Order: sequence, then structure tokens, then C-alpha cells
Amino acid sequence: MPRSVAAHRQEVVELLTGVLAGKDKIALPLLDALGRALAVDVYAPLSLPPFANSQMDGFAVRSADIPDGGAELRVAEPVPAGAAPAALKPGFAAPIMTGAMMPAGADAVVPIEKASPNTFPDPDAGQAVVELPAAPPGTYVRDSGSDIRKGTLALAAGTRMGPAQLGLLAALGMRTVDVRRPCRVLLVTTGDEVVEPGEELTAGKIFDSNGTLLEASMLQAGLDVVRAGISDDHPSGLLRVLRRHIGPADSMVDLIVTTGGVSKGAYEVVRQAMEDQPVDFLPVAMQPGGPQGLGTFDGVPFLGFPGNPVSCLVSFEMFLRPALSQILGTPAPRPVLRARLAEPLTSPEGKHQVRRGTLDPDGKVRMEGGAGSHLVHALARANALVQIPGDVTELAEGDEVEVWML
Amino acid sequence: MPRSVAAHRQEVVELLTGVLAGKDKIALPLLDALGRALAVDVYAPLSLPPFANSQMDGFAVRSADIPDGGAELRVAEPVPAGAAPAALKPGFAAPIMTGAMMPAGADAVVPIEKASPNTFPDPDAGQAVVELPAAPPGTYVRDSGSDIRKGTLALAAGTRMGPAQLGLLAALGMRTVDVRRPCRVLLVTTGDEVVEPGEELTAGKIFDSNGTLLEASMLQAGLDVVRAGISDDHPSGLLRVLRRHIGPADSMVDLIVTTGGVSKGAYEVVRQAMEDQPVDFLPVAMQPGGPQGLGTFDGVPFLGFPGNPVSCLVSFEMFLRPALSQILGTPAPRPVLRARLAEPLTSPEGKHQVRRGTLDPDGKVRMEGGAGSHLVHALARANALVQIPGDVTELAEGDEVEVWML
Repeated sequence: MPRSVAAHRQEVVELLTGVLAGKDKIALPLLDALGRALAVDVYAPLSLPPFANSQMDGFAVRSADIPDGGAELRVAEPVPAGAAPAALKPGFAAPIMTGAMMPAGADAVVPIEKASPNTFPDPDAGQAVVELPAAPPGTYVRDSGSDIRKGTLALAAGTRMGPAQLGLLAALGMRTVDVRRPCRVLLVTTGDEVVEPGEELTAGKIFDSNGTLLEASMLQAGLDVVRAGISDDHPSGLLRVLRRHIGPADSMVDLIVTTGGVSKGAYEVVRQAMEDQPVDFLPVAMQPGGPQGLGTFDGVPFLGFPGNPVSCLVSFEMFLRPALSQILGTPAPRPVLRARLAEPLTSPEGKHQVRRGTLDPDGKVRMEGGAGSHLVHALARANALVQIPGDVTELAEGDEVEVWML
Repeated sequence: MPRSVAAHRQEVVELLTGVLAGKDKIALPLLDALGRALAVDVYAPLSLPPFANSQMDGFAVRSADIPDGGAELRVAEPVPAGAAPAALKPGFAAPIMTGAMMPAGADAVVPIEKASPNTFPDPDAGQAVVELPAAPPGTYVRDSGSDIRKGTLALAAGTRMGPAQLGLLAALGMRTVDVRRPCRVLLVTTGDEVVEPGEELTAGKIFDSNGTLLEASMLQAGLDVVRAGISDDHPSGLLRVLRRHIGPADSMVDLIVTTGGVSKGAYEVVRQAMEDQPVDFLPVAMQPGGPQGLGTFDGVPFLGFPGNPVSCLVSFEMFLRPALSQILGTPAPRPVLRARLAEPLTSPEGKHQVRRGTLDPDGKVRMEGGAGSHLVHALARANALVQIPGDVTELAEGDEVEVWML
């Protein structure tokens, strides 16, 4: 009986967890860490804000100086942002700008709009006074540590570094961050019929699109990719290519991914090359991407994807990408939405079908191309994978389906 | 009256359309074009598939050779993928592999499972015969051009280059692609209180997080970023920084973005530096990110974002990123979902509020931090922007809201 999609994904997670969890960390400048996963818990080396500061342009006051009916206070030296102000004397109000440090003694801010006069006096024009309404302690003050306190957890290991996370580390004064060293994948496409784009295309040959499609997918997911080019359909040739790129003791790659040669035909080069290795070739109850290889080659984790471009993309999106998200915290999982079918469709019983579709702004999803796994132009029009579970064989227009946004 | 969010976004689109539409193109190797926008329409230089091929492992036959009841045919030379087969003689069936070229004369494939015997004969064992059921013309044949025909539009100008689009170009034999030269942004943070991460933090100072946060956002959106560091609060200093990075005739940058110094306080360096330039400083009916600057500086498009980190991120996500998507076709718009509030919230009347939230797998969205625009730790926990329109002042737990996934 074919393995379920979820069970195979779990096998991929188990295959990769050991080797990826053991990856060392690497310190990178903040911006180079964009999209990578934090290797360690980061604790705040200072509080944010580092000091109590004003939330408004206005007057910093001692709240006790102003009774309920308001009071007239003498105007102190203004406090611009960035200055270390002198303590505020009783009976004074200090003009203060947004973000500027509260003077010692001050515990509230009255916004300039509520002052009379409601403009700041010229600092050179001699002693001014201002009439201010009462303000309870804390009014328009951002307390030190109100965003995060020194010594508390800022970001947990595994967090994916996006703009906001990197901005937080910068606010904490950090210039570099320890991220997990990325997973390095050896990518080999196979097939006597496959030639590199730009070379001569003779009868019976096709250009290799799997290599580009998968390398781009892997780069997008934060992997380092080693391209080993195209292997022909001779097992000895494939073995040579693989062993050229992996070392016997300390492997230079964390994972091998091949395309093609995993089904039951007469010339299945990947199956044949893996005969002496602990690799399973098995059907997964999924369409496309049913035939899959999984195991280790000379001790290096190995995944064998089928040879059609759509099958390759679906294999990556359904198995390898989610496994990386789960183990490494990066890439981000694909956004999952519910959408309504713009057209009826049928699906084979017992197989989880992954169709390519376009989710339109009206929330309806149209199919791009048929079920055929060679339709790379149709794939290039799609923005979503439409998930049809194995127990569903027929859906009507308007029925709700799960879609994964690409 | 403050400008609406939609009206300001449209102003940003109009400001940038001219300069970005005029950008020249650049030919890049396919994988370097990942995430960029196609500069030209691409027409297919060949059909896909380039030749009729088999969808199954099986026997290529002349359908006319097999009556309804089936027939015994002589087995011809096998056709592996990548081979240019000889024409199929009447009365013969050729073993054929998935993806292999259909022999001239053959017009259908019978899968190996339906053959008797249901295995391929040893080619060296002399003339074999096989019993096959009837197959209508076209059965399990992928016609030449069934995915895309030579000379038709493969990808339209403006298409964002993801793995599938690059895979299609590779399948068409292309090694490079013309993409739009990316927009180059000069990014300047301002403020006497701001110091570079890693430097000494004296009283009243904070580390610059805006620069990292916005540069990361811009890199994610496919922009080239020129960082001009931090300008102090002297207009002459800011003017020097700006003019060092833009040329009078042929500008080295397409857009200037500053942070801070755009509201109505006493030390608003960006406002002051722009006094002689056609720049508007105006309130947008949005919170945070209300004060915005927009215009040109020495002829270069200019956007002035407010100085708080959350305001910067919201300004980028609400105005600049959508404008780039609309004009350039890249970056991809943020996925927009409907979610249910995990808690009640209030919002100021007449202002479009953008709250930071976490969308949980159960479809509920929790707020991260309050409305305060300095809360960068809270921002770093969020995975979504929660959109509260200006005419909504109160929402209950369970109410539906629009969220943009970050």
C-alpha cells in the first residue's frame, strides 16, 4: 500500500533531523542573516527603551506640581532627542521632543497642543512661563524596559530572521548574529534525454528545466546548492558524479537530491545506482510526485525525486521544504488559505492530488493546465498549489479547497 | 483633512512610475534573476514538449494495427528516453519509456501493465511478440506543443521570476533572461539620539534599528540599497549626505528614503532640509505612520518616513512595497487573509490603524504589543499586519479582520 503524504514527510524529517541539528553556527552581519534561522537564544543586553522618554512633543513636568485646575510653570531648558538633560527643578516645565530622555524628577508629559501658549518659547528670549493642565504620573512617558527588559529573552533559537527581528537586534546594539549554517544540497538531474539549456537540441532530447527549477526553489528556501550537472542513464556515471562531491569521512554536503530514474521502467538510473545502499524506492499516495526515493548514499541523506518538472516542484514543496521549516525554523511555511474552486474537478481515489492553480483576488482558484506533470508552462502561470485529499474524488464549482501560496 | 491611505499610496505610485518605468534592462543568468521582474515579453523559441513523447512506460503502437479485441504484435527495438527512434513498421510494437520520443508512424501507447506478458522482453533474446489491447489514437501521448507552441507568448513583461518561471525558461533552452534593473534606494536615518549598533551608548541615545529594519525590508523586496548612515539633526548635515550620493545629471539613485524628522516638533531635520524642494509634509489618516513626506529632492523622488521603527515598517509595507509591486511586478504582494480577532480592540475614529499581530494556525489573530510605534520587540514577535479601516472604532473578540502576512 502506498505511503501517505504525511507519513513520507515525517520520514524526510527523520532522515534530516540528525544531520541538520548537528550543524554548527556561523556569526554573520545582521543583513547577511536575512531569511536564516537563529542558532542560539538571544537575551537583551539592555532594556528597550534604554531610558524613560517622551511619547509626544510637549512639556516634561513633575505631576505633583500641577493641581487638578492646572498651573503656571516656569519654562526650563528644552530637551531635544539625544540629549542628557539636567534634572527638572520643582516648579519648572521642560520643553521635550518625542523620543527625548525624561529629565530626572519629571514623571509626565503634557502635549504641546494642551499648553498655553501652545508653541515652544524662544529659548533665547529670557524666562518664559507656560500654563499647563494636570497630568497623572506616567502620562505620555515610555518607561525604560516597557518593550523589553535587560536580561530577558529577546529571540528564541530557531527564529527566522526577517526585517523586524534584525531591527530588534540592531536596537539592542548588535552588529552580528549567530545563525545556523545553511544546509548544503548536492543536486543532480539525470536522463539520457536531458541536455543543458543553450546546448544543441537533437531529436528526442529536451532541455533540463529540473535543475533550474529546483535550484531556484532551494535558494529561495535558504539552502546552499551544489550543482553536479546532468548524469546520463548509466549507473556507473551517476555513482562517479555523486562520489566526486561527497567525502568519505566528513561529508561536504548534507543532502543529495536527484531527479528522475526512480520509477519502475527499464532504465531507472537512480534506482540502479542505489542498489547497494540503504535506500527505499516506494510509491507515495500523491499525484504528481508519486514515486520517491529516500535513504542514505555512503551515509549522506538522499532524496530521489521523479523526473518531470511539476513532480519535482511538488516533491520539494510537499516534503523537503516543510521538513526544513520544521527542523531549522526556516524557510517560512507557505501561507495556507481556503479558496473556492472556479471550476469542478475530479481526483483519483486514494491519491492526494496537488493541482496547480491561480488564486484570483475574488478568492476563487482556477486550475492551470491539467494533471499532467510535464506542463511547465502551465506551472509558470500558477501562484498556488491546490490540495485535494486522497478521499476526495469529485469537487463542484464553488467547493472550498486548501491552497498553498507559492 | 488628512489624506487617505489609498490616496497616499497612489501618490507614491505616481511619484515612482516615471523613473522606474524608464529603467533599462539587464541580462542575467537565470538563477541570478530569481525574484526579479521580466523586462520584455518572452516568446517560446521552441514548442514544449519539443516532440511527441510517451506519457508511460509501455508499447508505442499504430492504433490501426489493433482491432477492438486486441492483437498480437511483433516487438521492435526499444525506445529509451533521449533516443531518436526508427519509424515503427506496421505490425510492430516498440517498447517505449516515459518521455521517450514517439517513433514515426506510432500514434498511441499501451502501458506495460496492460500488455501480455506485462514485462519488456530481453532485446537480445530474438524476436518476441506481445499481446496488446486496442488504444485509440493519442492514448498516453504527449503531443508536441501541448504545453506551449513555438512562437507564442511564454511569459509577459513584468512577470516575477520564481522557480517555475525560471524552470520554464530553462525548458525553452535559455541561459539568461532580461530583467528590469532593480530600483536603487538611498536610505538615510536621522536623529541626534541615534547611534550605530555596536558604538557606545551614552545617556539619551538609542541604537539605530530603522536602518537595519528598512534595508532588510528593501532587500527582501528586491531593491538595491545604498546606506548613507545616520544624519544628525542639522539640516546642512543631511543636505551634505544626500548630495554626496546623488549626481546632478544622471542620478545614481532612483529614490531617497529618510526616517525621522517629518512631524511638527521643533527639530524636524528632514522638513527643514527640504524647505526649498518640492516636497509635501502631510498627515496621512493612518496610525502608526501618520506623518509622511513625499516629493523630489534635486529631482530625485523622495519619501520621508517617520522615525519610530514600527512606523517605518508600516510606511514601507503600506506605501512603498505595494507601489513597487504595482509598477515593477515585483515584489509579490503580501498574502491577504481574513482572520478572527482573539481579543477585542479599539481604534481611533478616522484613522486606518495598522496593528501588529500573530495569526495562529486556528485562524485567530492575537495582537502583539499595544498601538505604540516604538515597540520593536513586539513587532519582532508578529507575523502579520492587522488592518483596521478608519471608520471602525471598536471590534469584539471573534470579529473578522483583514490581515497581511509578513
